[in-house]
Amino acid sequence: MTAAYTPQVLRAVVDRALAEDAPFGDLTSDAFVPATARARAVVRTREACVVACGDVVAAVMTACSDPASPAGAVRVTDVVPDGERLAPGDVLAVVEGPARAVLRGERVALNLLARAVAVATRTAAYVAAVGDAVSASGRPVRVVDTRKTTPGLRALEKHAVTCGGGFNHRYSLSDAVMVKDNHLAALLGADGEVTSALRAAAARLPHTTHLEVEVDRLDQIEPVLASGVVGTLMLDNFSLEDLRAGVTLVAGRALVEASGGVTLETIGAIARTGVDLVSVGALTHGAGSVDLGLDMELATSTAAADPRP
Amino acid sequence: MTAAYTPQVLRAVVDRALAEDAPFGDLTSDAFVPATARARAVVRTREACVVACGDVVAAVMTACSDPASPAGAVRVTDVVPDGERLAPGDVLAVVEGPARAVLRGERVALNLLARAVAVATRTAAYVAAVGDAVSASGRPVRVVDTRKTTPGLRALEKHAVTCGGGFNHRYSLSDAVMVKDNHLAALLGADGEVTSALRAAAARLPHTTHLEVEVDRLDQIEPVLASGVVGTLMLDNFSLEDLRAGVTLVAGRALVEASGGVTLETIGAIARTGVDLVSVGALTHGAGSVDLGLDMELATSTAAADPRP
Amino acid sequence: MTAAYTPQVLRAVVDRALAEDAPFGDLTSDAFVPATARARAVVRTREACVVACGDVVAAVMTACSDPASPAGAVRVTDVVPDGERLAPGDVLAVVEGPARAVLRGERVALNLLARAVAVATRTAAYVAAVGDAVSASGRPVRVVDTRKTTPGLRALEKHAVTCGGGFNHRYSLSDAVMVKDNHLAALLGADGEVTSALRAAAARLPHTTHLEVEVDRLDQIEPVLASGVVGTLMLDNFSLEDLRAGVTLVAGRALVEASGGVTLETIGAIARTGVDLVSVGALTHGAGSVDLGLDMELATSTAAADPRP
Amino acid sequence: MTAAYTPQVLRAVVDRALAEDAPFGDLTSDAFVPATARARAVVRTREACVVACGDVVAAVMTACSDPASPAGAVRVTDVVPDGERLAPGDVLAVVEGPARAVLRGERVALNLLARAVAVATRTAAYVAAVGDAVSASGRPVRVVDTRKTTPGLRALEKHAVTCGGGFNHRYSLSDAVMVKDNHLAALLGADGEVTSALRAAAARLPHTTHLEVEVDRLDQIEPVLASGVVGTLMLDNFSLEDLRAGVTLVAGRALVEASGGVTLETIGAIARTGVDLVSVGALTHGAGSVDLGLDMELATSTAAADPRP
Amino acid sequence: MTAAYTPQVLRAVVDRALAEDAPFGDLTSDAFVPATARARAVVRTREACVVACGDVVAAVMTACSDPASPAGAVRVTDVVPDGERLAPGDVLAVVEGPARAVLRGERVALNLLARAVAVATRTAAYVAAVGDAVSASGRPVRVVDTRKTTPGLRALEKHAVTCGGGFNHRYSLSDAVMVKDNHLAALLGADGEVTSALRAAAARLPHTTHLEVEVDRLDQIEPVLASGVVGTLMLDNFSLEDLRAGVTLVAGRALVEASGGVTLETIGAIARTGVDLVSVGALTHGAGSVDLGLDMELATSTAAADPRP
Amino acid sequence: MTAAYTPQVLRAVVDRALAEDAPFGDLTSDAFVPATARARAVVRTREACVVACGDVVAAVMTACSDPASPAGAVRVTDVVPDGERLAPGDVLAVVEGPARAVLRGERVALNLLARAVAVATRTAAYVAAVGDAVSASGRPVRVVDTRKTTPGLRALEKHAVTCGGGFNHRYSLSDAVMVKDNHLAALLGADGEVTSALRAAAARLPHTTHLEVEVDRLDQIEPVLASGVVGTLMLDNFSLEDLRAGVTLVAGRALVEASGGVTLETIGAIARTGVDLVSVGALTHGAGSVDLGLDMELATSTAAADPRP
Repeated sequence: MTAAYTPQVLRAVVDRALAEDAPFGDLTSDAFVPATARARAVVRTREACVVACGDVVAAVMTACSDPASPAGAVRVTDVVPDGERLAPGDVLAVVEGPARAVLRGERVALNLLARAVAVATRTAAYVAAVGDAVSASGRPVRVVDTRKTTPGLRALEKHAVTCGGGFNHRYSLSDAVMVKDNHLAALLGADGEVTSALRAAAARLPHTTHLEVEVDRLDQIEPVLASGVVGTLMLDNFSLEDLRAGVTLVAGRALVEASGGVTLETIGAIARTGVDLVSVGALTHGAGSVDLGLDMELATSTAAADPRP
Repeated sequence: MTAAYTPQVLRAVVDRALAEDAPFGDLTSDAFVPATARARAVVRTREACVVACGDVVAAVMTACSDPASPAGAVRVTDVVPDGERLAPGDVLAVVEGPARAVLRGERVALNLLARAVAVATRTAAYVAAVGDAVSASGRPVRVVDTRKTTPGLRALEKHAVTCGGGFNHRYSLSDAVMVKDNHLAALLGADGEVTSALRAAAARLPHTTHLEVEVDRLDQIEPVLASGVVGTLMLDNFSLEDLRAGVTLVAGRALVEASGGVTLETIGAIARTGVDLVSVGALTHGAGSVDLGLDMELATSTAAADPRP
Repeated sequence: MTAAYTPQVLRAVVDRALAEDAPFGDLTSDAFVPATARARAVVRTREACVVACGDVVAAVMTACSDPASPAGAVRVTDVVPDGERLAPGDVLAVVEGPARAVLRGERVALNLLARAVAVATRTAAYVAAVGDAVSASGRPVRVVDTRKTTPGLRALEKHAVTCGGGFNHRYSLSDAVMVKDNHLAALLGADGEVTSALRAAAARLPHTTHLEVEVDRLDQIEPVLASGVVGTLMLDNFSLEDLRAGVTLVAGRALVEASGGVTLETIGAIARTGVDLVSVGALTHGAGSVDLGLDMELATSTAAADPRP
Repeated sequence: MTAAYTPQVLRAVVDRALAEDAPFGDLTSDAFVPATARARAVVRTREACVVACGDVVAAVMTACSDPASPAGAVRVTDVVPDGERLAPGDVLAVVEGPARAVLRGERVALNLLARAVAVATRTAAYVAAVGDAVSASGRPVRVVDTRKTTPGLRALEKHAVTCGGGFNHRYSLSDAVMVKDNHLAALLGADGEVTSALRAAAARLPHTTHLEVEVDRLDQIEPVLASGVVGTLMLDNFSLEDLRAGVTLVAGRALVEASGGVTLETIGAIARTGVDLVSVGALTHGAGSVDLGLDMELATSTAAADPRP
Repeated sequence: MTAAYTPQVLRAVVDRALAEDAPFGDLTSDAFVPATARARAVVRTREACVVACGDVVAAVMTACSDPASPAGAVRVTDVVPDGERLAPGDVLAVVEGPARAVLRGERVALNLLARAVAVATRTAAYVAAVGDAVSASGRPVRVVDTRKTTPGLRALEKHAVTCGGGFNHRYSLSDAVMVKDNHLAALLGADGEVTSALRAAAARLPHTTHLEVEVDRLDQIEPVLASGVVGTLMLDNFSLEDLRAGVTLVAGRALVEASGGVTLETIGAIARTGVDLVSVGALTHGAGSVDLGLDMELATSTAAADPRP
Repeated sequence: MTAAYTPQVLRAVVDRALAEDAPFGDLTSDAFVPATARARAVVRTREACVVACGDVVAAVMTACSDPASPAGAVRVTDVVPDGERLAPGDVLAVVEGPARAVLRGERVALNLLARAVAVATRTAAYVAAVGDAVSASGRPVRVVDTRKTTPGLRALEKHAVTCGGGFNHRYSLSDAVMVKDNHLAALLGADGEVTSALRAAAARLPHTTHLEVEVDRLDQIEPVLASGVVGTLMLDNFSLEDLRAGVTLVAGRALVEASGGVTLETIGAIARTGVDLVSVGALTHGAGSVDLGLDMELATSTAAADPRP
């Protein structure tokens, strides 16, 4: 459900990864695996996890297939839908095709998938910790991501966040405004006044641009909100007590986002302070990789004498 | 000291990351930061770490600079050399230039750097755990990486491994052969004989190709080595006892690599079984990100009234 | 002041245009113009116009310069700032450098510039027709663009709109939501209910996503606004009377955008109905090109006997 | 019938346009349109026009289809052949497929098509104004285009010119020589002699290169033609009287092209002066866009409750 | 059997070549060949040769096919397998499809194929001259290639070498180490000692990196081999006598490669000196092109009156 | 003097060649050559030759330089101008800079240069064999190239032809028409008439397109020329006698090109039959490579102990 995660983006990521992993071909398969050998393999998880980007497997295997011969195509089936939970040992997808192609794509498929699944799984843990917390405005509290994603893989990781039940924050610097302390300092210069400065700057934005402002202290809230142009107020590194006070001060004039060093241990309490959103860099930053493997069965190949050509 | 980590590769990674992070510009800086504002910032670590890919900062900031105006250039200085250790709070680099450019590049620089530094730091821990262990053949035991890297960032991560004192394994499927169980099964078919099959396949390789073979059991070692073509033997998921027995069996006829689920807790003992190499997927797989930040000071800007253009 | 109009985007547009205009070089200049000849030229407008994208000239001429020789660089000076008005005959920029490079870049520079200037000029006319009209909510009425831009040149044309005093609407399908009749029909299916359907769908969006909904009739306004999730309401092809009625019905609960076949003749009255925004496809759709020319003076070249090499 | 308008070029233009229009996906369709919804739509013209580049619709819709699923393909049928005339309300093509894909491609298809059709329509008007005029050499007078095309869209626009009954001039700086006053000035230097200078320069050209020379006055014609190397003589901004005199002077020794500020009002008389070609920048320069629309009918979708995934 | 010669690499080479050969289409076919005309053609050799890269024909013709129409596809059949010998007049492949597509791809297909076949044919001559020569270590002597390949076509040429019975040396600077005199000079500086310097540098390499060292004189052999890290010793420009002496000195401690100005006349004697490998720059450097042609039969086309569109 | 040989094209060729030759860096230089070592080298020819594309050396070395450090730049000086003759041992250019960069670029520079110089040298031989032959129309007879060039290197090879004193034929399928037997067969169908068919097809071409027609027999000449649209007539595989007869028949109505299996032995006589042009595939097809080398002197490097980093 992440708009950014398009087939075109996935294809580009996969092509780049395959080129990186074999700039001039797979020496091992070409010398040790007969061109006619076929393989059947299952992608299996060795940890409990939440599925994300399951279509990566087909995307990689398609790119490894020889477009010229129908027999060269790798088929990927039984792909578990994104968002489902798996137990250790469960199968995520089934792969069948020429052994050379399957072996060629194995590592790239696992490297991409393991990272997406890790992000979804970690997100699901944060979402579970939030539970059914509701904001002061009566909406379910959202766990949202940040721009702390792996360069080149943002679309996959943002999609994985939604697979784990989280929500996306802005995708990039181009689709929403986030005014941080440094921007404000630059905007105000020596002795500027924040309320009118925000209003003046907002007047330069497209009317579709959502404006979020970060504050570090309770006393910054009122002048910021007084501008009347703020859609979301980010309370950065606030204590639980201050979060509650902040929510009260905002009084529904803007969405409230809690941010800063949120952990699995702290998110539950934060989510019950009345805020609307809790952003968690750790959903993608340092999410690591889930342990996945490709268990292969080689079809009995009658002609194994000479693997050439 | 990693050949793959060239200025050209770094430039491509940076360009891609910047395009991903701002497909049509930085809305916030353009509306809220005067074009003439300047910033001075330091990249600071919030954790103890080992530096890697410090030149990422300059690469990102150069790409964010306006090539048309000399005043548009961001200067990066005081970059701590790769491989050095930092304590929490230490400065990794100093950045100075137009505030818009610095803010534009901040997140991308940190995202790349945080991952590289995490890999180097984790590698250094593994290297420390190996200490001065020496192989049966009298060489220092190497901690080596795997192909479990982040797609698109392999060159950076492989370089970061060397910054942490580790060594690189093959870079890709194109520069060395690694024969795993599936390759052997495909090669042998129903009733093949491994010794001659390996020899025959190796005869198809360029003479410069290093041949590594993975075995799962002690009894596989002799027929594999009997082929006379094996440069490295990988003992996969062997117990400490079997590793020792394996080293004895090999008797210097090949390098011996221990592999499979190696952790910080187990690597010390493994390294003292006489093996030459211990490969650790976790150096890059799930290495996470170190917590780095860009602390900014904005220069007093005289003309802050209207940030246009 | 358009974030999307970055030096990187401009460079890509220029490179593509130059490749299209000379896939294998400039036959005429190479055969008829001595390599040592130099030229001085001025970009001059033959119509009254508003400047936009003046930096296109330098971008093109830089790309035509030989990077290997300092003498090969074309210098561009006296560029009139974007947004300024010019009378027929006024000079927009001065170009000086190797005659071959100047001649090579002439057509591409003019083709790009003439279109951007036309968009700015046309926009300025619409903005003038709106004058100091103020919306029911007390804000100056904005003339905004649409996605009816020339494929490949959106960043330039969106920037040109701002040079003419207009404002940008969303940049693309990726940075704001616009729900049109077809979306609603698909969303509702046979017998859906619009208020709850909008609310449910909006709950799937990032919190930073601005939601605009298009309506065709007055009676659609209330159920749409009742969802409480609409940032902007577009009144499509409404009569002046209905626009006024619509503004009254909205009563400040959302921004109001008038849309549909707006012309220079009609925009004044529309802007005085109380709406906040008037979107005009014609700002970019069919804006045509302003008549610009490059008037050249060739420096006296002493060695004109043989133009080679 | 324009060689430059190849499927490969069209594909590249379409891919670039789609990326520009949705760098990270279509937020609206993904949130508001069920994945299973299907649409049937017709491309309809709201103005009388001449069709050009009708295959743009299929090219865009194919690029928006999901290559992985056969059900994901958009079918385009009933495309009116290029060159045919349409009345207001006529259908240009029929589109059927997944609603998300159709909505995703709508704007890009229309933006490209509307421009091509405008060029063809405008060209047809100029061609009609020329009627059956015949040159002094007895050939039908050609309306030809120029290099004043939209950067990035030259192949489409040049093709559209032929759809409207016009002819193409050279495609680029690389496929024919056009010597203008500035080239001559550079070639001749202080006191050169034009006849021998032209001959000497032409001797450096490939024998397949057509050489056209622009003159501004009648007295320039003889020395230029005396070189014996000129294939086409361009009479730039000549009065009707001078055009006639020029044709007489040329006396069949070269093709004669009239050029400079030609309008629909003036082209008829110009075409009857005996010239072979009339070049019209306005065919593409400022041709604007024809008003086309995509009228959609949404198929009854049974499962509209939840648009996910 | 050359890993580097993948379908992806071939596709990229073909796309680039086609773009180079028709940056804006095929003027001749579009004007002179009816769109409906079909052609049947055979690729025929006019010289005795060894086939290599036969799949180039299908790759080019596929790229020239119109993807939108099934009738637009060119079929390529009866492709002679790589490595087979052909006599003058033999057919290498059969091509059938739209005449425009076949004519469009003809030259590119022949240009690529003629070079690959020339490399294979020349290699086969060198391999024949070596005959059944056996090295001192009892292995068949290999004819190996170098990096003296045509820029952009290395994968094809390296593959062609194997088609001719030769073997590949390292693919690039990235997959094996070759230490030449200049490297040693740089390594040693003023007064370094080669044995320990080689050992120290080798300790910085991945364990999978094959290390080859070039020597120019017999007295250099012992200190180089004493390092214990050399996999292959290259004897550069040695006389036959010195080659024999070198092989004796090496005594099986490394593979021995003879190199330097090897010709068809000299390779036989060199191969019988006991060396393991003879590298021949001339396999690819100056291999020229074999004379191939496309003999076409045009199907009787009923509608030839007007080739449009 | 070849328009196609632009700095942009050269840069693209060089980048591609360097990527091919070191997809992930230069293992040897990085491990064996200190980062601080500097080198001075000369490009020297070992054969008599004619220089072409001398700027390749600078283009390669610039691309190998580290853009971040001024000390990282390689300087290339004393480049012999294109078209000059060199004797064995002569120096073509001098290179000075970091040893790693020089070693990195050596092979690519030589591979490109050696091929260009070979083309120029071979062309010069053909041009010399033609001597001062003059056509029946009184012009010096031209030696012209064909489209039988190395895919990807056409611009360099076409330029090299002019360095050797030859002339270029059409650059590609896009810039001139060449009607061969297969085109005519397709055009005429079963019983067409060539004169009117050619005239009709030519009427569809841009007026700037040069039309060349190939004939195989004397009796084909008259109907082809009778069309009045032919710029050049190619007499393919004609005997000397028939060439003379053909020239007489043409009688100045078109340029006459002799073609087909022209060799150094035959070109002299062919050139004296009165033809205007002799096209020689062998100028580029099978031109081979001239033997060039890079002779290096390493500067005394004070710090050679440890080449890291």
